Amino acid sequence: MKHAPLVESLIEAFTCLPGVGPRSAQRMAYALLERGREDGRQLAGALTAAMDGVRHCQRCRNYAEHDLCPICQDPRRDAGLVCIVASPADVLALEQSGEYRGHYFVLMGQLSPLDGIGPRELGLDVLEQRLNEGQIQELILATGTTVEGEATAHYVLDLAREAGVSVSRIAQGVPMGGDLEFVDGATLAQALRGRRPFST
Amino acid sequence: MKHAPLVESLIEAFTCLPGVGPRSAQRMAYALLERGREDGRQLAGALTAAMDGVRHCQRCRNYAEHDLCPICQDPRRDAGLVCIVASPADVLALEQSGEYRGHYFVLMGQLSPLDGIGPRELGLDVLEQRLNEGQIQELILATGTTVEGEATAHYVLDLAREAGVSVSRIAQGVPMGGDLEFVDGATLAQALRGRRPFST
Ligand SMILES: [Zn+2]
Ligand SMILES: [Zn+2]
Repeated sequence: MKHAPLVESLIEAFTCLPGVGPRSAQRMAYALLERGREDGRQLAGALTAAMDGVRHCQRCRNYAEHDLCPICQDPRRDAGLVCIVASPADVLALEQSGEYRGHYFVLMGQLSPLDGIGPRELGLDVLEQRLNEGQIQELILATGTTVEGEATAHYVLDLAREAGVSVSRIAQGVPMGGDLEFVDGATLAQALRGRRPFST
Repeated sequence: MKHAPLVESLIEAFTCLPGVGPRSAQRMAYALLERGREDGRQLAGALTAAMDGVRHCQRCRNYAEHDLCPICQDPRRDAGLVCIVASPADVLALEQSGEYRGHYFVLMGQLSPLDGIGPRELGLDVLEQRLNEGQIQELILATGTTVEGEATAHYVLDLAREAGVSVSRIAQGVPMGGDLEFVDGATLAQALRGRRPFST
């Protein structure tokens, strides 16, 4: 035992964060103990509030703390246009491009049958229902260009065709095999403008 | 507003951690929300417990949750030998060298009059008292080789001389101008073995 047990537990708890090894975890714990106890208490409060209070938007599955997320609640956005993305981080990346004023549908993953992630796990039954309700005029596919992203895009394409909804796909500038959230805003803006009808 | 407010607050709270910018903070928040809510709650608990429960050892000033830290409570350690370090991270670095079986005195800083950090802020009045009590046979100075570290070492050297306690200093292998906590264990072990009487 080199640390006091409370310090040890804190260091260990920090290593649950992505990109944080034992060394960074120790630096974080010491920084808060030495000159940031109020920050530490605030972080604890924000964590508890978010872990307990954040759920998923009933319409688009993005993070929300009420039934609907801020985007779905915004009457100025075009509800006839829905962009399909894999994750909340992708929504943020597209929002930061400043180009998009429609709605989203967040799959919270990609189709991956071997991992037990099928259409239901991605809420695609909910999307199918919404497509058949008639409000959606166009779907934009932005599920990324990995193998799983392609499979997911094709599945959604089939749903949209059955419902008679036109489908486009962001195209220009999205690097092959890359995750959408690491693409800069300007590139994403161009990709949105350059969208084209989906062809199989 | 791009995130739900609870998510936004969590991301902002993460940026109080050293080395965490807005991008990493977002990745941390999303990782916990998506697949680590229990981890997030645990981190919140560890933070609260540590921020409220960690204080300073009454003997060595290192972090402790009782009056004495685990090292000061350990009867197998040599209480006649006290190593002076700037921070708890330095204690950990020396412990990891596996070379040292004495006690520590943790200054929680270095002398820096311009920043209002004088001998009292570093607990040097407490150290002076302990030196005069007669139990300490030797002080090892390990305050690092920055300007402040040198000034601090000289101040402690004077205290020890007045009390008639011999003083050595870790020497070999500590890089000039470097912080002790980034030195590897083997180098620190060598530096401890190679300690020599302090000369002014
Ligand atoms: Zn929504
Ligand atoms: Zn102690």
